[in-house]
Amino acid sequence: MNINEIQSFVPPVRTLMGPGPSDVHPRVLQAMARPTIGHLDSNFVDMMDELKVLLQYAFQTENALTIPLSAPASAGMECCFVNLIELTDKVIVCQNGVFGGRMKENVERCGGMVVMVEDEWGSAVDPNKLEETLKLNSDAKIVAFVHAETSTGVQSDVKTLCEIAHKYDCLTLVDTVTSLGGTPVKVDEWQMDAVYSGSQKCLSCTPGLSPVTFSEAAIEKIKARRLRVQSWFLDLNLVMSYWASGAKRAYHHTAPINALYGLHEALVMLKEEGLENAWARHEKNHQAFRLGIEAMGLSFKVKESERLPQLNAINVPEGIDEVAVRKRLLTQYNLEIGAGLGNLAGSIWRIGLMGYASNMKNISYCIGAMADILGNS
Amino acid sequence: MNINEIQSFVPPVRTLMGPGPSDVHPRVLQAMARPTIGHLDSNFVDMMDELKVLLQYAFQTENALTIPLSAPASAGMECCFVNLIELTDKVIVCQNGVFGGRMKENVERCGGMVVMVEDEWGSAVDPNKLEETLKLNSDAKIVAFVHAETSTGVQSDVKTLCEIAHKYDCLTLVDTVTSLGGTPVKVDEWQMDAVYSGSQKCLSCTPGLSPVTFSEAAIEKIKARRLRVQSWFLDLNLVMSYWASGAKRAYHHTAPINALYGLHEALVMLKEEGLENAWARHEKNHQAFRLGIEAMGLSFKVKESERLPQLNAINVPEGIDEVAVRKRLLTQYNLEIGAGLGNLAGSIWRIGLMGYASNMKNISYCIGAMADILGNS
Repeated sequence: MNINEIQSFVPPVRTLMGPGPSDVHPRVLQAMARPTIGHLDSNFVDMMDELKVLLQYAFQTENALTIPLSAPASAGMECCFVNLIELTDKVIVCQNGVFGGRMKENVERCGGMVVMVEDEWGSAVDPNKLEETLKLNSDAKIVAFVHAETSTGVQSDVKTLCEIAHKYDCLTLVDTVTSLGGTPVKVDEWQMDAVYSGSQKCLSCTPGLSPVTFSEAAIEKIKARRLRVQSWFLDLNLVMSYWASGAKRAYHHTAPINALYGLHEALVMLKEEGLENAWARHEKNHQAFRLGIEAMGLSFKVKESERLPQLNAINVPEGIDEVAVRKRLLTQYNLEIGAGLGNLAGSIWRIGLMGYASNMKNISYCIGAMADILGNS
Repeated sequence: MNINEIQSFVPPVRTLMGPGPSDVHPRVLQAMARPTIGHLDSNFVDMMDELKVLLQYAFQTENALTIPLSAPASAGMECCFVNLIELTDKVIVCQNGVFGGRMKENVERCGGMVVMVEDEWGSAVDPNKLEETLKLNSDAKIVAFVHAETSTGVQSDVKTLCEIAHKYDCLTLVDTVTSLGGTPVKVDEWQMDAVYSGSQKCLSCTPGLSPVTFSEAAIEKIKARRLRVQSWFLDLNLVMSYWASGAKRAYHHTAPINALYGLHEALVMLKEEGLENAWARHEKNHQAFRLGIEAMGLSFKVKESERLPQLNAINVPEGIDEVAVRKRLLTQYNLEIGAGLGNLAGSIWRIGLMGYASNMKNISYCIGAMADILGNS
């Protein structure tokens, strides 16, 4: 590539209905283009305080340690594990898709002892299997699982899983990347201890930030660590001081100022709509989408009671070249939907109705485009 | 704080002449507000390829592994350490400011054995001290130091330090956060092995991304590791696959799409200006600024031969309340300059002339405003 041929990058205008990033509201994009100010500027520090309050609302928690990490959700996952796990801690990971596998990787890299509870990809985590495993592993310290599996479109029963984990004196570590803002996530009521999410799904923001929240019990475990957290960047003892209010605030790193403008705006919009209204909208639009999908003769991978309204796993019909369909959607319709991941590559499409992208215009457009293409292929 | 009182955040328009973030060019802000596309979109993947070429130019390297990490420079530093260090590796860290101290923290958290070479804050790293230390530590594997100490405004002699390190068979790990784009950074010519930088200083982009580059020798050490990298998010074996071209590309995390638009635009602008021209501009503007500072009777902390043109450490005159001066600059002039950090808190101001902020308008404004305030205090 000749460097002199490189020009300003002007992206095409897509409709984003994959597993994320999803469509970003123009208000959020505009917020990101506002003038950069310093990360020690009192105006910025006030905005950080507001971000904490807005995230507490989104997570339905009063946890003081509720902040956006300055990195994508993968780093949010890692932050939860590196802070909570001490060398040789036993951790139960429930896997029913790609991201449970990534959790296992994280436990191993922290020097934890991992015990897997496996469920089929496309099904929810089975609470009975978790309880059986905990009976056999009474020394387990942490139970980790994914609320909304982005790879399959399945939601698991967080409340029940947390109850079981706490019965066996475990802390809970929960991935809410695809659920936050789209379906109920009730951190306090469900007693979730360490929770991470992402900015680019149902919060309608750009990718790159990871909202996290930690219960008092989680913070106690972190403060009582014998060894330092292996990551300097993700060490919550340091990050907490950075996000502390007033005079207690200590420099840690330079925050991604403009990205945080965007998240702030997205959360203000969530507050304006109301969290319950946002959940209801995702559900209502999912039902409209389902009717269209079923009218085309297509079916869902996941059984109705476990489906995520914001991420629809559609079985690819026999004889259809699924790659060609996605390619035509992208090139002819500027419409992005997702492929299957891991075990499900080739057999499903993943169609997101997340955040701002969960609207009737997108649904009609997607159903119409798919009907055109499938009718002619 | 009542959540219902939280409104859209509209930042004040500041002139950013602290140690970073520095003023961001409107072209970069506009680029960040362009429509988000998917991270698997071929248009986005093409832009990633362009970013690699543009960063190779900025770093003056042909290193294939030259990419922006999806997190701030603190994570870039950690990425270099967690990948290069294996348990019990001996690492020499040269410290002459705040960031050498952070390097030490990183080595310890990776299980490395750290040997410190200390120089006074405000002076360059002394090559003789490094060589003496290497003579006594022939089993050292890595020499780490900061090119441009953001906490003091000092530049060290990268070329000489790298020569000495290689003479003793060490890899070099260099912080170029404040130098890249502002003063010469010649990765290949100077034989730097693992190098990280930040987006928000002389590249005139918003904070949040960390350009990094790794030599063949560094990659060999990483590929030959006995144990996995302790961080999943920063494991270059995985990150490399994500940034690989064409069919070899593997999903790792969701890139911060819009932030990368901004960096791409900032690097296109650097290419348009020409790297040598950018260096010359920083030097010329520093000289103009120096004349103004000296005309006011103020002095520099750092001796002339070791000064960074883009970050000026100015001694606070006796009897002056340095906090009050900065506060008046910010509130009356919307002008941000920096305080001293660590050992130098209270005794210096740090005034940045970085990237887009290195221009005659800013210099006149800053000198005029300081003359007003100091003349009346």
